[in-house]
Amino acid sequence: MNPLENRRFLLQRRPHGTPQRDDFHLETGAVPTAPQGGMVVRNHFISLDPAQRGWMDDAPSYMPPIALGDAVRATTVGTVHESRNPDFAVGDWVLGLNAIEDYSVVTPGGFTSKIDVSIVDSPSRYLSAVGAVGLTAYFGLTDAASPRAGETLLVTGAAGAVGSMVGQIGKILGLRVIGIAGGAEKCRRLVQDYGFDMAIDYKDAHGAKPVDALSAEIAAAAPQGVDILFENVGGDVMDAVLMNLALHARVVLCGLISEYNAPEKIGIRNLWQVIVKQATIKGFLIAGYVPRFAEGGAAVAQWIGEGRLRVDEDIQHGLENAYDAFMRLFTGANTGKLVLAVE
Amino acid sequence: MNPLENRRFLLQRRPHGTPQRDDFHLETGAVPTAPQGGMVVRNHFISLDPAQRGWMDDAPSYMPPIALGDAVRATTVGTVHESRNPDFAVGDWVLGLNAIEDYSVVTPGGFTSKIDVSIVDSPSRYLSAVGAVGLTAYFGLTDAASPRAGETLLVTGAAGAVGSMVGQIGKILGLRVIGIAGGAEKCRRLVQDYGFDMAIDYKDAHGAKPVDALSAEIAAAAPQGVDILFENVGGDVMDAVLMNLALHARVVLCGLISEYNAPEKIGIRNLWQVIVKQATIKGFLIAGYVPRFAEGGAAVAQWIGEGRLRVDEDIQHGLENAYDAFMRLFTGANTGKLVLAVE
Repeated sequence: MNPLENRRFLLQRRPHGTPQRDDFHLETGAVPTAPQGGMVVRNHFISLDPAQRGWMDDAPSYMPPIALGDAVRATTVGTVHESRNPDFAVGDWVLGLNAIEDYSVVTPGGFTSKIDVSIVDSPSRYLSAVGAVGLTAYFGLTDAASPRAGETLLVTGAAGAVGSMVGQIGKILGLRVIGIAGGAEKCRRLVQDYGFDMAIDYKDAHGAKPVDALSAEIAAAAPQGVDILFENVGGDVMDAVLMNLALHARVVLCGLISEYNAPEKIGIRNLWQVIVKQATIKGFLIAGYVPRFAEGGAAVAQWIGEGRLRVDEDIQHGLENAYDAFMRLFTGANTGKLVLAVE
Repeated sequence: MNPLENRRFLLQRRPHGTPQRDDFHLETGAVPTAPQGGMVVRNHFISLDPAQRGWMDDAPSYMPPIALGDAVRATTVGTVHESRNPDFAVGDWVLGLNAIEDYSVVTPGGFTSKIDVSIVDSPSRYLSAVGAVGLTAYFGLTDAASPRAGETLLVTGAAGAVGSMVGQIGKILGLRVIGIAGGAEKCRRLVQDYGFDMAIDYKDAHGAKPVDALSAEIAAAAPQGVDILFENVGGDVMDAVLMNLALHARVVLCGLISEYNAPEKIGIRNLWQVIVKQATIKGFLIAGYVPRFAEGGAAVAQWIGEGRLRVDEDIQHGLENAYDAFMRLFTGANTGKLVLAVE
């Protein structure tokens, strides 16, 4: 980066389906100055998440849409560049909801907190293991799913940042863990790198497998049914799992990445199985667990320290590569928590 | 009926989509005799329910499919015609899971219980108000939905047997109650006969309204969002309500009648709103509440006795009319709990 300029990755057109390169524009301007009571943060690591795709749509959600002409909203880790707030000094490491840009203006009252980077091997860990990803995996499984040792857990999007942690935490809790992912290499990682009991590839040489074929593979892998479905994908993959729920199954609905770029939502067709199995689907957002973040972060950090939990990061480099980096979420290319290092 | 013969309404072909008249066959045979330890019940009233459509499919469910050539499984109220079981005497009134036929053979251990018809104005009440319908409405709302006074309840299929009771129980519990039904006359009944606060017609002159239009009407009726959705319909109607959930909404998934005759399941496309609103969908079957049936039946009976709960029955007559009677469930013609009087 040039320390005299601020590059900002702007949303200039709402994507229709898959985001196109020219839905965005990299603008170069002056480094901003801190407002009264606020500060300017120099971003070092930027979190790239499926949720950002939703914020690009003009649709009712838990946050307002990103305004056209604004930089794409993102969680970032950075250092305080200028401060007019007595609680923050220049050089402090901070985590906050900012944007894909070199420098972010933080107004008073915004969601920004100081972080202790001495306890992690990289500040980017605050975007993965001990950040929203790790807390989502932790609370989504340990709390929302009400797991009991010996039960069968199936994770979709299992090789993703959240999925790979959910599966590992499942093993720590004594569950039998099956992961669904796309491609032989991801399936190999699930079993060999993350310790899943089984991996199912939802693709074959012809592309995504039909629901019936995938359902039959799940039935073979989980003959007693799936007690807990940790759902990150939606669409046909979710439909195939729904055909294999155990009685009183719990579905933690964490994400629907198969839908985010679909101009027409795919949805699910096997909802009737939720009645038949007296199952429960819980819509999960980490926002509901803010008062317990310290507890969750401590548990995750301890498991990592004990070598029981492996958290991979897929670090992409350069703000100028923001579009290509973001698209790795949807092509299935990412191999861990996707992070953009600003540099 | 001819007391010397037994007419049986057989499933002779599995329906593809909407059941056709010749998927069934009315067979006439001899009156059966009671097996050792069992009995023969003469059916007087036969319950016709959406669930029966599901039992006709060869698909995994909470009960095995009806075998081809067997009479269509149904809950019936009748009198003991012949008994080889010391617990039942000829003439006793009983409720049981039997079939659409004049006489049913009850084997030992089957689900059959004596009923006290002196406390109801018609034995058919055991198929409606104090039967599975009433208990579904009672436990589905009072227990599964976790209602709090002042919340907004939306009921789909609101003019149906379960829906009309759910709405009335909602009013007893202090909820604001909105019903969705098809046609002006049903909507009039919701407000005038059942005391709903508002009714929304999902149809207009062109047929079913588009999801967006229906969603806008729901938004106007429930500007703070829907806290509880009691879902009997599925498909586009459910999708429209999902766009209007309040934060932490509860969806009691009781039925999906829009799907039962669809050769391809319609499903829902707005599942993402369940994440956004941190909502919960609970698949509901009354089977989970057997130990509390006495409590539920007493509560419903008391409300009826106090004149606070109105339960309509749509009594159709004659076993020979079983097909036409059953189809009233799907054409929207029925005006209360659908019951076939054998006669």
